[in-house]
Amino acid sequence: MATDATEAAADETYEEFLATVQRLTNVQNAAGVLNWDQEVMMPEGGTPARSQQLSALSAVSHELLTDDETGDYLDALEDADLDDDRAAVVREVRREHDRATSVPTDLVEEISKTTTEAHPKWKQAREEDDFSIFAPTLEKLIELKREYAEHVDPDADPYAVLFAEYEPYLDLDTAERVLDELKNELVPLIDAVADSDAELATDAFSGEFPESDQEAFVRDVLDELGYDWDRGRLDTAPHPFSSGTQFDARVTTRFNEADPMGALLSTVHEFGHATYTQGLPDDHYGTPLGESRDLSVHESQSRFWENHVGRTRAFWERLLPAMQERFPQLEGVSVQQAYEAANQVYDDNLIRVEADELTYHMHIIVRFEIEQALIRGELDVEDVPEVWNDKYEEYLGIRPDTDAEGCLQDIHWSHGSFGYFPTYTLGSVLAAQIDDAIREDLDVDELVRTGEFEPIHEWLTDTVHSEGCRFTTDDLIERATGEELTADYFVDYVTEKYGDLYGV
Amino acid sequence: MATDATEAAADETYEEFLATVQRLTNVQNAAGVLNWDQEVMMPEGGTPARSQQLSALSAVSHELLTDDETGDYLDALEDADLDDDRAAVVREVRREHDRATSVPTDLVEEISKTTTEAHPKWKQAREEDDFSIFAPTLEKLIELKREYAEHVDPDADPYAVLFAEYEPYLDLDTAERVLDELKNELVPLIDAVADSDAELATDAFSGEFPESDQEAFVRDVLDELGYDWDRGRLDTAPHPFSSGTQFDARVTTRFNEADPMGALLSTVHEFGHATYTQGLPDDHYGTPLGESRDLSVHESQSRFWENHVGRTRAFWERLLPAMQERFPQLEGVSVQQAYEAANQVYDDNLIRVEADELTYHMHIIVRFEIEQALIRGELDVEDVPEVWNDKYEEYLGIRPDTDAEGCLQDIHWSHGSFGYFPTYTLGSVLAAQIDDAIREDLDVDELVRTGEFEPIHEWLTDTVHSEGCRFTTDDLIERATGEELTADYFVDYVTEKYGDLYGV
Repeated sequence: MATDATEAAADETYEEFLATVQRLTNVQNAAGVLNWDQEVMMPEGGTPARSQQLSALSAVSHELLTDDETGDYLDALEDADLDDDRAAVVREVRREHDRATSVPTDLVEEISKTTTEAHPKWKQAREEDDFSIFAPTLEKLIELKREYAEHVDPDADPYAVLFAEYEPYLDLDTAERVLDELKNELVPLIDAVADSDAELATDAFSGEFPESDQEAFVRDVLDELGYDWDRGRLDTAPHPFSSGTQFDARVTTRFNEADPMGALLSTVHEFGHATYTQGLPDDHYGTPLGESRDLSVHESQSRFWENHVGRTRAFWERLLPAMQERFPQLEGVSVQQAYEAANQVYDDNLIRVEADELTYHMHIIVRFEIEQALIRGELDVEDVPEVWNDKYEEYLGIRPDTDAEGCLQDIHWSHGSFGYFPTYTLGSVLAAQIDDAIREDLDVDELVRTGEFEPIHEWLTDTVHSEGCRFTTDDLIERATGEELTADYFVDYVTEKYGDLYGV
Repeated sequence: MATDATEAAADETYEEFLATVQRLTNVQNAAGVLNWDQEVMMPEGGTPARSQQLSALSAVSHELLTDDETGDYLDALEDADLDDDRAAVVREVRREHDRATSVPTDLVEEISKTTTEAHPKWKQAREEDDFSIFAPTLEKLIELKREYAEHVDPDADPYAVLFAEYEPYLDLDTAERVLDELKNELVPLIDAVADSDAELATDAFSGEFPESDQEAFVRDVLDELGYDWDRGRLDTAPHPFSSGTQFDARVTTRFNEADPMGALLSTVHEFGHATYTQGLPDDHYGTPLGESRDLSVHESQSRFWENHVGRTRAFWERLLPAMQERFPQLEGVSVQQAYEAANQVYDDNLIRVEADELTYHMHIIVRFEIEQALIRGELDVEDVPEVWNDKYEEYLGIRPDTDAEGCLQDIHWSHGSFGYFPTYTLGSVLAAQIDDAIREDLDVDELVRTGEFEPIHEWLTDTVHSEGCRFTTDDLIERATGEELTADYFVDYVTEKYGDLYGV
C-alpha cells in the first residue's frame, strides 16, 4: 500500500511537472513562430514590436524554467522511481534548469543588451571593412560570456562550458579529437586536389534559370523526397533555415537565377532538418521526448540528405531527366557532368557558406581555434584579423585581402555564439558515420536511383527521429551507428570521393 | 519632501506596473501573430501544436492579468495622484483585471472546452442543414455564458454584461436606442427600395477577372489610399480580417474571379481597420494608450473607408480609369454605372456577410434580438430557427428555406460570442457620424476625387487613432464628433443616398 501511495504521489508530481514543461515548450515554440515570421513575412517596420514580443516570451520562459516550483519538482522526481522515459524528461529539464538558475538575471540581461548592440556594429564593420568598429563590442561580449561560463561551472574550462550550450552531451574532448583528425587528414587532401590537373564540368549548369521555374522544381524535389506538405511549407529567406515542430516543420530557401544548384542543394539540406523535425513523435509534443536532439545531430540529418543523397551520382541519375524537362537548356548535360558540378572543390574560396564539403571544415577549424583562444584569454581581440588570415593561408593556402571577406564574414560572434561553429563539422562527420551504418542495412544508391526514399526515411526515423531526446547525444549516436562519434567515416568518404573525382 | 517621496514611490510603482502591462500586451500580441499565421500561413497539420501554443499564451496572459501583484499595483495607483494618461492606463487594466478575477478558472476552462467542441458541431450542423446537431452545445454555451455574466456582475442584466465584453464603454441602452431607431427607419426604406422600379447597373462588373490582376489592382488601391507597406502586408484568407500592431498591421482579402468589386471593397474595409492600427502612437506601444479602442470604433474606421470613401461617386471618378486600364473589358462602364454597382441593394439576400449597407443592419437586429432573448432565458434554443425565419420575413420580407442559410450561417455563437453582433451596426452608425463631422472640416469628395487621402488620414489620426485608449469610447465619440452616438447621421445618409439611387 505504501508503495502504491508513493507511486501515486510521484505520478501526480510528474503530471504537474509535465504541465509546466509543456507550457514552457509551447511558449518557446510560439517564439519560434515569431522568429520564422520575422525572417520570412514581417514587414521591416515591425522590428520594435517584434523585439519586445520576443523578449516577453523569453522572460516568461526563463521564469518558468527557473521557478522554485520547477526546482522542487525536479528534486522530488529525482528521488522517485521513474521509468526511463520520465527519467529522460527529468534529465533534460534538470540540465536546462541548473544552467538557467546558475546565471544571475543581470548578467543574462547584459548579454542580451550587448548582443543587441553588437549586431549593428558587426554589420557596419563588415560593410566598411573595418574590424575596429566591431572589436570593442566583441571584446565586451567575450568578457561577458567568460563570466557566464564561470557562473555555470567555475571549475571547468570556460570554452567547454560554452560549447556545452550547443552540444551538451558531446564533450569538448570529442570535438577536439574529431577536428584534429580532420585537420591532419584534410589539409594534404585539399593540397592534392588543388594540385590536380583534373578538369571537372564546373560550368555544366551555366545559363539563366528563372526563379519561378526553380521554385517549381525544388517543390517537385521536396515532393519526391517525401516532405510532408500537410505539416510544412516552403518560402524564401535571405539566409535559408528550417524551423517548427513535428506538426509544422517549415523550410526556406533562396534562389539565384544563375545558380540552380545552389537553391536545389540548399533546399535538400533544409529538407533534412525538417524531416528530422517531422519525424519526432506526435504524442510527446511539448516535452523533451518530442524535441530534436542538439545541433550536431540536427546538422547530421541535413548533411546526410544534402551530401550523402543530394551529391551522389545516383541522385543525379534520378534527378537529371526531371531537371532537363524543367530546364531544356540542360539537355546536353550528362549525369557525370552534373555529379561533377555538384561536387567541385573551391580551393580559392574565402567564404564559409560558399564552401564545398571538403574545404568547409577548414573554415570551421579556423573559427574553432580562434574562439577557444579568445575565450581562454590567450588571444587579444585586436589580433584576430592577423591570426585569421594566417590560419587561412596555412590551412587553405589562401589569404583574405579584407576583413569583410575574413574574420567579419559570419554573424555568429555578434550573437555571442562561441562554441556553435564546431557543431557544423560534427554534424557532417556524424552524417558520414550514419551513412555508413545505413548502407549496412539498405542499398541507398539503388533506392535513390529509383526514387524510393521511404526506406531511408524509415531507417532514420526509427534510429534517430522518433527517439526525440530520449537518449543523450552520445548514446543516440552509439545506438544508431554502433560506435562513438569518429571522423574516420567522413575521412574515408571524402578521400574516396574526391580521390576519384580529382584523380588524387 | 514628503510629497516628493510619495510621488517618487508612485512613479516607481507605476513603472513596475507598466512593465507587467507591457509584458501582458506583448504576450497577447504574440498570440495575435500566431492567430494570423494560423489563418494565413499554417499548414493544416499544424493545428494540434498551434492550439497548445495559443492555450499556453492565453494561460500566461490570464495569470499576469489576475496576479495578486497586479491587483496590489492597481489598488496603490488608484490611491495615488496620477496624471490623466497614467490614470487611463490604470482604468483600462483595472477593468480587465476585475473581469478576469471575478470568473473562476474552472468556468473559463469549461467555456473554452465547450467552444472548442461547439465549432465542429456548428460546422457539421451547417453542412448537413440540421440545427439539432448544434442545439445541445449551443444550449450549454448559453448556460455557461449566463453563469459567466453572473460572476462578473450578479446584479446586472446578463446580456448587458456580455455586451460589455466587446463594448465596455457604450452601455446596452445606447445600443438598443440606436438599433431601435434603425429598425423604425430602415424597414420602410427597404420596403420602398424593394418596390422601386429603378434599374441599377448591377451587372456593370460582369465577366472574368483573373486573381493575379485583381491582386495587383488592390495593391495599387492600397498604395493610393496610403497604406504603409513598411508596416504591413496583404495576403489572402478565406474570411478576410486584419490584425497586428502599429508597427505591423496586416490585412487579408479574398478574390472571386467573377466579382472584382468584392475583393476591392473588402480590401478597402480591412484597410480601414489597418490604418487605425497603423495610426496608434508608437511610443505607447505595449500599453492601453497604444491600443485601439473597442469593436465599434474599429468597425467605424473600416466602414468609413469602405462606405463613405469606397462607395462614393467621387471614389469611382478617381478609381475607374485605373481599373479600366487594369481590366480593359470595363472600357464601356461609366462612373455612374460603377457607383450603382457598388451600391445595389440586395433585397432578397439571406446572408449577412453578403448584405449591402442598407439591409445589413436588419440581419444584425435579428441576431441582436434573438441572442438577448436566449441569454435572458426568454427563448428556448429549439425555437431559434422558427423565430429567426419569422424575423427575416418581418424585417426583410424574405424567409430562409434552410437553417444553413438561416440561423446556422454565422460562426459567432459557436465561439460563445453573444453581444458581438451589435458592434458591427454601431460601427456603421459611428462611421456615418464621423463622416458628417469630417465633412465640416474637409471637402472629402474633392479630396477623394483628386486622390489626396492624406488630410483624411490626418483628421482621423488626430481625432481617433492617436488617442489609443486614452478616452473611454463614449468620450472619444463625443470629442471626435461633438455629440454622443446617434443613428441620425446614418439614417440621413442612407435615406439620401438610396433615395437618390432608387428614386424613393
